[in-house]
Amino acid sequence: MKIAIEPVRDQPLVDAVVGTGSEVVALDDAEALVWIAGPDGFPELPDAIKWVALSYAGIESYVAAGLLDDRRIWTNASGFYAAGVAEHAIALLLAGLRQINTAVLDHWAKDRIDPAVRTLRGARVAIVGAGGIGRQLTPLLKACGATVIAVNRSGRELPGADETLPASLLDDVWERVDHVVLAAPDTPETHHLINDRTLARLRPHSWVVNVARGPLIDQAALHRALTSGVIAGAALDVTDPEPPAADDPLWSLPNVIITPHVANPTSGLTAEMAPFLAENIRRFEAGQDLLAVVTPGAGY
Amino acid sequence: MKIAIEPVRDQPLVDAVVGTGSEVVALDDAEALVWIAGPDGFPELPDAIKWVALSYAGIESYVAAGLLDDRRIWTNASGFYAAGVAEHAIALLLAGLRQINTAVLDHWAKDRIDPAVRTLRGARVAIVGAGGIGRQLTPLLKACGATVIAVNRSGRELPGADETLPASLLDDVWERVDHVVLAAPDTPETHHLINDRTLARLRPHSWVVNVARGPLIDQAALHRALTSGVIAGAALDVTDPEPPAADDPLWSLPNVIITPHVANPTSGLTAEMAPFLAENIRRFEAGQDLLAVVTPGAGY
Repeated sequence: MKIAIEPVRDQPLVDAVVGTGSEVVALDDAEALVWIAGPDGFPELPDAIKWVALSYAGIESYVAAGLLDDRRIWTNASGFYAAGVAEHAIALLLAGLRQINTAVLDHWAKDRIDPAVRTLRGARVAIVGAGGIGRQLTPLLKACGATVIAVNRSGRELPGADETLPASLLDDVWERVDHVVLAAPDTPETHHLINDRTLARLRPHSWVVNVARGPLIDQAALHRALTSGVIAGAALDVTDPEPPAADDPLWSLPNVIITPHVANPTSGLTAEMAPFLAENIRRFEAGQDLLAVVTPGAGY
Repeated sequence: MKIAIEPVRDQPLVDAVVGTGSEVVALDDAEALVWIAGPDGFPELPDAIKWVALSYAGIESYVAAGLLDDRRIWTNASGFYAAGVAEHAIALLLAGLRQINTAVLDHWAKDRIDPAVRTLRGARVAIVGAGGIGRQLTPLLKACGATVIAVNRSGRELPGADETLPASLLDDVWERVDHVVLAAPDTPETHHLINDRTLARLRPHSWVVNVARGPLIDQAALHRALTSGVIAGAALDVTDPEPPAADDPLWSLPNVIITPHVANPTSGLTAEMAPFLAENIRRFEAGQDLLAVVTPGAGY
């Protein structure tokens, strides 16, 4: 088939397209568009475009821009970067439990660090929004000896998790776990999922990890919880806004780790996406359901 | 049997002793001594003491003090803290690969962090000195998608490792791996195992993790390698000396993570040791070989 790759002809994706026997063409000649950028500059779509493959996993900015019409198939990259994001999530959680941030900021502060070091062995970890990332994260947590409680919209069992619950039962989860990893999309239902009320139900030793989207956390509430001993720490790859303001009080807390939205590094993004794009081309040509089809109304 | 616990009657160890049906007594009445401190203040041993259980895994300080005689059995804690140390090792390695130290020191430095983020997926990791810690670390590395090359004295296969080599072939390993985790005891053979020559055979993206003993690394050579791009970074839970001097140049490098010897936190040490002590009491009473018997001459 004929596929446009815009706004730049990224080499790993060109290779993936050519590898399927397809052809990379200009947008006006294409049946499908691979768009590897944000919504700014998104083109007017010719009617011949039957499928748009977006390179982002989180598509709320496209939704907000009103780009997702119902005249063609839209796919995002949901799950395509899951292995890398899961690795970042466990790196953040372990860095928090092992007090690596404190160690970096405060040299050989053994008297403060030693009694605060915790372990994943025997800990209970909730993965909230357990889909592709949760599926990859679960075996990492299990290998470290943790118990995994997965929460997702449907409650459909997450392979390997000790327990999977539907989002409707999330309120019962907070008090049952030691730590929380957020992996949910940014939707009206997940907005400020972590707030004063839910933080109060966690434990003084709890860490909250966010590798999903910043707005899942009420950051003012998080700051209150982190400075009053309600929870032990937070490790965030995403914030609201991004980046946080230079004077955001979170920056000054020793129990906060903030990485600059690099769970799936932009520098390696298209190489990670390439095999999934190739699979979707194969499926499109075979008339099969595509991976990661977006439901425009739902925002994920 | 009658067991002394000195210099303090630590509660988790008292519970372990009592749980086996044994009795905690004064040193003069004991058949065995559990010693949960360094060599300073170590008592004169009555002849009736047939077994001394040391609570440390690394016993070079006892060896240096000339305490280990051949008139009784000596055990150390080799392997008892392995699970916790392995968790710290992967926490350090992931923190390095994921640039968490840079993120903590330099707020939202996305332009520098993003292209430097690496992954364990597909990486080859050498565990040098692969015994109890290596056995625990291997499944963690494998869960993250890494290939494990284990190196130990005998070359006896490490369960789960992709390959196990004897120390005599270590010279062939450096160029074949992406990252190195040191888990070997401190002996004349392992002194400055990481030096100018071996560092030069690693790669510009390599991280070196040390959860064993500081003297395994020539720190001056490490500093040279870290400042000249020979390797990417070092994550050290142990240093030489400990702590490093306040003006040690390693402190100022952004590609170094130093935690203050907390891979097995002192605060939780005896609770970790307790089940192994109980097992060794059972074995002693049954006339079986003990776990973690020290070879005084070898220093481990």
